[in-house]
Amino acid sequence: MEQWIRFEYQGNQGFGTLSDSRVTPFEGNMYNGAAATGETLPLDAVKLLTPCQPTTMIALWNNFHSRAAKEGWSRPDHPLYFMKASTSFLPTGGTIRRPETYDGPVVYEGELGIVIGSHCSNVSEDEAGDYVFGYTCVNDVTARGLLREDPLFVHWTRAKSFDTFSAVGPVISTGLDATKLTVRTLVDGVELQNYPVTDMFYRPHQIVSHLSRDMTLRPGDIIACGTSVGAGPMQQGCTVEVQIDGIGTLVNSFY
Amino acid sequence: MEQWIRFEYQGNQGFGTLSDSRVTPFEGNMYNGAAATGETLPLDAVKLLTPCQPTTMIALWNNFHSRAAKEGWSRPDHPLYFMKASTSFLPTGGTIRRPETYDGPVVYEGELGIVIGSHCSNVSEDEAGDYVFGYTCVNDVTARGLLREDPLFVHWTRAKSFDTFSAVGPVISTGLDATKLTVRTLVDGVELQNYPVTDMFYRPHQIVSHLSRDMTLRPGDIIACGTSVGAGPMQQGCTVEVQIDGIGTLVNSFY
Repeated sequence: MEQWIRFEYQGNQGFGTLSDSRVTPFEGNMYNGAAATGETLPLDAVKLLTPCQPTTMIALWNNFHSRAAKEGWSRPDHPLYFMKASTSFLPTGGTIRRPETYDGPVVYEGELGIVIGSHCSNVSEDEAGDYVFGYTCVNDVTARGLLREDPLFVHWTRAKSFDTFSAVGPVISTGLDATKLTVRTLVDGVELQNYPVTDMFYRPHQIVSHLSRDMTLRPGDIIACGTSVGAGPMQQGCTVEVQIDGIGTLVNSFY
Repeated sequence: MEQWIRFEYQGNQGFGTLSDSRVTPFEGNMYNGAAATGETLPLDAVKLLTPCQPTTMIALWNNFHSRAAKEGWSRPDHPLYFMKASTSFLPTGGTIRRPETYDGPVVYEGELGIVIGSHCSNVSEDEAGDYVFGYTCVNDVTARGLLREDPLFVHWTRAKSFDTFSAVGPVISTGLDATKLTVRTLVDGVELQNYPVTDMFYRPHQIVSHLSRDMTLRPGDIIACGTSVGAGPMQQGCTVEVQIDGIGTLVNSFY
């Protein structure tokens, strides 16, 4: 198991692994053929960036038994998803910003993020694990008041694509069994979400298989697996943490 | 007015301008500071690629008075849009492929595409033109049978993101007054769409202004302005042409 990060150090961007608060910088392609440079850095000497730079962020909706039961939604016959603008990414430590044009509820949604490791098209569930690089934490922030403003069109992309609305990190962990993970979300230290991956309608390998039949996935693409019960609005000045054991804690404030 | 293309020549990719069937290769940044290399090539010596490589393709829905009137849709209070996977792009001359997993109607939608020229956030309608690089033709292909399979979720991204489902080209034309343009779509030579940009609820500069308040737009991003009446299913083996005077003809077959 490795924990991969991207970072800024002395004005330059780099990537590498994190272990015991030491960063080991690597060179090459993080997804294929990276090599350690031989040096190490203390974690507090670097600024963490988003752990990858996806072209595409896909986010699922209605992927949990308990959420669907609460809302009265039926189990979908296929994973349901929308896309978020890749300009909306935010690293751990960054500030989620309220859009200037919007004064309604801005909602946190703690989620597990799948990071794709290689080009992936038409793969089976059994093969899917070979195309997953690792997993990360996601806060899929949503301007909930914009979702259903129009009577004919649920505006997923608009409500979720504002700058800073896709917090991702702090690391990508490889070698995890995602089905054993639990997602927790804390707001100002109070736990408001705590749900297991086993409650998903579609688990990560099934999601990758289904989506790979709809489109070609690429290294670094992130698939956010949807959120369960307990998502809710953020108050100005609050701190939101998305925690997954084996990955770590994604921490962001909201202003 | 210039017509910009991307092309492959002797195994290498390049970009440049097209005039009188001659290609003038350029070097540098197409959006900012490109310089002619001094040589020219005959058009038939190069293979045309998509004229840009967007990270993001945004596509509008319900943007035409005549289409809304026909369908009974109300005028939206804000442009309505979804995103298409950037792995779905196809150049002129390429073949639109039916997904292996789907045997329902695959629909052509001829559209005007706005190509963004520089980073763009919170701009007014009056400023928007400064951020538009030019215009291109788009065929926003849709697996229509997948849109409303789920009773709770209209699956825009899935129905429109299959590989080859976003045909774009043949060129990006700069210096056009988009409000004077007309979009025509021909299937096997028969005109099935013919509609003016003036029938849009939101015209290109208004669209760029609104979207720039929702997300940061980047050079090369494409915004497809939505389609009007006359979109319909393609038959296997047909040829679809999207024609806009001042831009040219985007030609694709469907198998």
